[in-house]
Amino acid sequence: MSLLVVGSVAFDSIRTPHGEVDGILGGSATFFSVAASWFGPVKVVAVVGDDFSDEHLEVFRLRSIETSGLERAPGKTFRWRGEYAGDMNEARTLAVHLNVFEKFTPKILPSHASSEFVFLGNIDPRLQLHVRRQLPQARLVACDSMNYWIEGSLKELKETLAAVDAVVVNEGEARMLSGRQNLRQAATEIQKMGPRIVVIKRGEYGVALFNNGSIFSTPAFMLEEFKDPTGAGDSFAGGFMGYLAKAGDFSEANLRRAVAYGSVMASFAVEEFGLQRLLGLTPQAIEARMHDFMRLTQLDV
Amino acid sequence: MSLLVVGSVAFDSIRTPHGEVDGILGGSATFFSVAASWFGPVKVVAVVGDDFSDEHLEVFRLRSIETSGLERAPGKTFRWRGEYAGDMNEARTLAVHLNVFEKFTPKILPSHASSEFVFLGNIDPRLQLHVRRQLPQARLVACDSMNYWIEGSLKELKETLAAVDAVVVNEGEARMLSGRQNLRQAATEIQKMGPRIVVIKRGEYGVALFNNGSIFSTPAFMLEEFKDPTGAGDSFAGGFMGYLAKAGDFSEANLRRAVAYGSVMASFAVEEFGLQRLLGLTPQAIEARMHDFMRLTQLDV
Repeated sequence: MSLLVVGSVAFDSIRTPHGEVDGILGGSATFFSVAASWFGPVKVVAVVGDDFSDEHLEVFRLRSIETSGLERAPGKTFRWRGEYAGDMNEARTLAVHLNVFEKFTPKILPSHASSEFVFLGNIDPRLQLHVRRQLPQARLVACDSMNYWIEGSLKELKETLAAVDAVVVNEGEARMLSGRQNLRQAATEIQKMGPRIVVIKRGEYGVALFNNGSIFSTPAFMLEEFKDPTGAGDSFAGGFMGYLAKAGDFSEANLRRAVAYGSVMASFAVEEFGLQRLLGLTPQAIEARMHDFMRLTQLDV
Repeated sequence: MSLLVVGSVAFDSIRTPHGEVDGILGGSATFFSVAASWFGPVKVVAVVGDDFSDEHLEVFRLRSIETSGLERAPGKTFRWRGEYAGDMNEARTLAVHLNVFEKFTPKILPSHASSEFVFLGNIDPRLQLHVRRQLPQARLVACDSMNYWIEGSLKELKETLAAVDAVVVNEGEARMLSGRQNLRQAATEIQKMGPRIVVIKRGEYGVALFNNGSIFSTPAFMLEEFKDPTGAGDSFAGGFMGYLAKAGDFSEANLRRAVAYGSVMASFAVEEFGLQRLLGLTPQAIEARMHDFMRLTQLDV
C-alpha cells in the first residue's frame, strides 16, 4: 500500500573514528524513503536547492521512490556537519545551515491524497498538522519530533499528537515530552496525548513499542563494527513503516515484526557512511539479517 | 543439582527517591542465594560478624539455604551505605566498612566439595581461584568481578578467568577488562581469556549472553515502578545459576532461559527495598512474571 514521507533532504559532512565524508546525500526523508523502498512504493515530500543535481535525484530513482513531491527552491539544500567520537552514541553538531529547508512548507499533491500510510518526519509540528489534515484517507499516520519542538512549540506539538496514530521518538525525547523518567509511565502519558502507538528508540539498546495496553521491548542488532550512526533512527522508521504498509494492517504481531524490520534496516544503515549500505542491499540480505536478528533475540532456539 | 555461592553478606543503608532504610540484610551472596533458592538447594560461603543475629540467620533458613559455610568472625559485619538519585541507574557509595569481610578467606567444607554449580561472587580474584581449585567436581563455575580488581589485580583476575567456565560482569566492566568499546568485540576478547560463556549485564537495558559462537541479547523486564536497585545484579546471577543448576545442563536453549529467569529475579529484587520482594515470592509468581517477560520480549505473539 502507498506510503508517504514528509521530511528533510540534506547534504551531510560527517567525521567518525572510521573516516570522514563531505557533503554526501542524507536527511530524514532520504534515509526513511530508501529504507522503506525495500518493502514497497514510497512517495517523498521534501525541498531541495539549486545544488541538488541529477546525480542526487538518481539515488531516489534507483529505488523507484516517487519524487513529484520533491520541491526545488532557489538557494542551497539543507546542510549538516557533525562528528561522532568514542562509542559514537551521540552526534556533536558542528554546523547547521537550514537554507531552503528554513521556509519549507510541504505541498501535498493530488497524487499524494490517497496515501494510506504516512510518516511526518521531524519538522515544525504546525506543518506536520497541516499535512496530516490534507490526508483524510490515511489509515496510519506516524510522526517524529525532537527536543527543539518539545521545548519551544509544545502546545502545537500536542495538537499534532492528538491527530496522529503513532509517534516515533527517542528515549530522551519521550522523557522530556512526558515529564516521566520511567519509560512505561512516559509512554502512557504520551498515549494520553493522542497516539495509541508509541515507539521509543533507545539507540544501541534497542526499541520499545507501546500499542494500546501491550508492550514489546527488543534489543538492537549487535554489530561487530559500525562506521556512521547518521540516519539510523530514520532508517528504523523507514523499515517500520515500510513493513506496515506492505503488511497492510497494524495488528500487534505485525507491529512487532515492523519493529524488527526497522531494527534490521537501522543496523544496515550504520555499517557504512551515508546511504551506501542501504542502497546496495538485496531482499535476500534483508531476510538473512532478519533471520540473524531473530536468532539474536529469541528465547526459544 | 547442588549450587554453591561464595560472596559477601552485608548490612546495607540505602536512600532512594522512594524511601530510606538503615542496616538491612544484603550482600552479594545473600541476594544471590535467596534468588537461587527458588530453583533448588543452595549452599552459601561467606563471613559475618558478632552483630549477625539469629533473626538474620532465619532469613537464610526460611529459604532452606545451607549455612554451614557461613563463618562467624569476631568484629562487625560488612556495612555499605549508598544512595540512588534521578533515574537510579547508578549507586553513589557514601560509606563502606569492610569489617570482617576485609580478612575473609572462604573455607570450603567437605560438604561443599561435591558442588557441581559454583558462583564466585565479587571478591579478590586470588580467593576466587583458591576456591575454584578446591572444587574439582564442578561442572559449571561462574565468576563476577569489578573495576577495583580489573584495575588493581588484572594478572590475578586473568588467572581466575582462565580457570572458570563463565563470567558475569556489567557493561562497563566488560569494556574495561577487554579494552574494547564494542560489546561483541569485548566478549570475544574475554572469551579468549578463558570463559566460554560471557554474560554482560546492561542494567535497565537488559543482558547479552555470549556462548561459544552464539549471541543472545534481551531487554530487561519493564517495570512501571521500582524502589531500590540494590542487589539486582546478584539476583540476576542467582536466577541465572539457579535455573542452570535445576536444568542440569547448559545447552544454548537452557542458557537463554537462564538469562530470562535471571532477568525475572532481578525485576522482583528492585520492586522493594532489600530482600523483601524476593523473600515473599511464590513459584506461581515467578512463572507468571516469566510469562510476562516472554510476552514483552518475543517477536511472535
